[in-house]
Amino acid sequence: MAGKPPGKVFGVGTGPGDPDLLTLKAVKALNGADVLAFFAKRGARGNGRTIVEAHVRADILELPLVYPVTVEEDKESDSYKRAIDGFFDESAARIALHLQAGRNVAVLSEGDPLFYGSYMHLHLRLAPHFPAEVIPGVTAMSGCWSLAGLPLVQGDDILSVLPGTLAEEVLVTRLAGTDGAVIMKVGRNLPKIRRALEAVGKLDGAIYVERGTMPTGAVMPLGDHDGSPAPYFSLVLVPGWKGRPQGSLA
Amino acid sequence: MAGKPPGKVFGVGTGPGDPDLLTLKAVKALNGADVLAFFAKRGARGNGRTIVEAHVRADILELPLVYPVTVEEDKESDSYKRAIDGFFDESAARIALHLQAGRNVAVLSEGDPLFYGSYMHLHLRLAPHFPAEVIPGVTAMSGCWSLAGLPLVQGDDILSVLPGTLAEEVLVTRLAGTDGAVIMKVGRNLPKIRRALEAVGKLDGAIYVERGTMPTGAVMPLGDHDGSPAPYFSLVLVPGWKGRPQGSLA
Ligand SMILES: C[S@@+](CC[C@H](N)C(=O)[O-])C[C@H]1O[C@@H](n2cnc3c(N)ncnc32)[C@H](O)[C@@H]1O
Ligand SMILES: C[S@@+](CC[C@H](N)C(=O)[O-])C[C@H]1O[C@@H](n2cnc3c(N)ncnc32)[C@H](O)[C@@H]1O
Repeated sequence: MAGKPPGKVFGVGTGPGDPDLLTLKAVKALNGADVLAFFAKRGARGNGRTIVEAHVRADILELPLVYPVTVEEDKESDSYKRAIDGFFDESAARIALHLQAGRNVAVLSEGDPLFYGSYMHLHLRLAPHFPAEVIPGVTAMSGCWSLAGLPLVQGDDILSVLPGTLAEEVLVTRLAGTDGAVIMKVGRNLPKIRRALEAVGKLDGAIYVERGTMPTGAVMPLGDHDGSPAPYFSLVLVPGWKGRPQGSLA
Repeated sequence: MAGKPPGKVFGVGTGPGDPDLLTLKAVKALNGADVLAFFAKRGARGNGRTIVEAHVRADILELPLVYPVTVEEDKESDSYKRAIDGFFDESAARIALHLQAGRNVAVLSEGDPLFYGSYMHLHLRLAPHFPAEVIPGVTAMSGCWSLAGLPLVQGDDILSVLPGTLAEEVLVTRLAGTDGAVIMKVGRNLPKIRRALEAVGKLDGAIYVERGTMPTGAVMPLGDHDGSPAPYFSLVLVPGWKGRPQGSLA
């Protein structure tokens, strides 16, 4: 077997949901891949896999990587950490077998692969041993603020990206001390996020986006949201552009 | 003339430099546009225009929007502010004439249009009066950390995006109080940025990227940079993922 060159692993950013937000580079990587790997929850198809549907060759080998755990578990627990580390080790090992056999593997990653994406855990394990390339994608936040037509920052403004999983008092401090903010991982953290924004006087102007750029997406002022549980694919945009001119056309 | 529907304005994100990082949606918008508007410095072609070269129809009407001022001017001065506001007013008015005549206008924006991009100033002026759509793009930071294969944040980490134009003491405070950071608008601010990172013990690990994803791009540890003036298209990545596992493959 010596001398057979290994395959290459591509972390392929799929963008936030609209298949037309795939890059030309992502489409080329999908066309050139022998194996299509993607993360999925048990019993579900995987959102990344849905986004690329139109570009999946009939003869490609599909490799679903099914999370062993659910979002409901306590992520700070030792058992969660062991399970998820083991899952990434095992997933990397499965991909490595294909790479060793000379097959190119595309690993799908929603949005941009290295921006809070699971792909990074595979990249760290595989890139030291195999040719690897990350193909950046449009992030969820870019998709969402474009949909809302809402610029968050310009000029000297600071943008903070805050996971909604942070403690309420941390959110309050961070929201008070930034210009624009994006709050990711909303889901069941929505009531906490809303309280934190209210505490710093930034609820007015905050925009809630769920399933941005997907067919079933919605955009609304966070203040108008009825407080019902938010889906996994949701985030909050907090505009920070002070002195923003009013729209006016001479 | 009554009854003729107006054209639509598209803010088209071009991605950070590699033409293959255009999205399918951006390419479709370029194909459907009657007018191609783009920002350019006096005497230069405009980087966005260069990125989309392969997708420009021969019969499209080109509308360069040439900045009246240079980066060397003091951006806080009243004369700068008047000049730049007048420029955006005038550019919006020129585009409005085409929209009123029923022509679709694509306005190029490097990276993602609403992420520190000049297009937002046109959007605010035009969107209240004409059909408008923002097509998100891959940001420079996503292009750069993908090139470097360097994830900055995961899990509960906070990411701060900091313009390098901020005062040194502001940079120090912000860098001390975040997990990951991206410092944009480096250029002649490089020595200040370097001092601020050194002050908070984060120079080690910081990565400098210039012209990321462009043919002449370069990636290096910031500590290895010789301090010569950085080009406009450069940024600094500060990884924030504590407890990041070492790459290892069973
Ligand atoms: C693990 S992070 C992955 C982020 C992704 N890699 C990116 O580049 O944006 C998942 C979070 O992204 C956000 N998200 C992803 N897709 C979204 C969409 N289409 N609309 C709104 N939020 C989305 C949600 O906040 C979700 O909890
Ligand atoms: C006015 S901001 C525009 C940002 C852009 N809209 C985006 O989405 O990234 C310009 C700054 O972006 C960064 N930048 C843009 N393109 C870059 C590239 N190819 N490589 C490195 N930095 C880049 C530089 O820091 C530059 O000063």
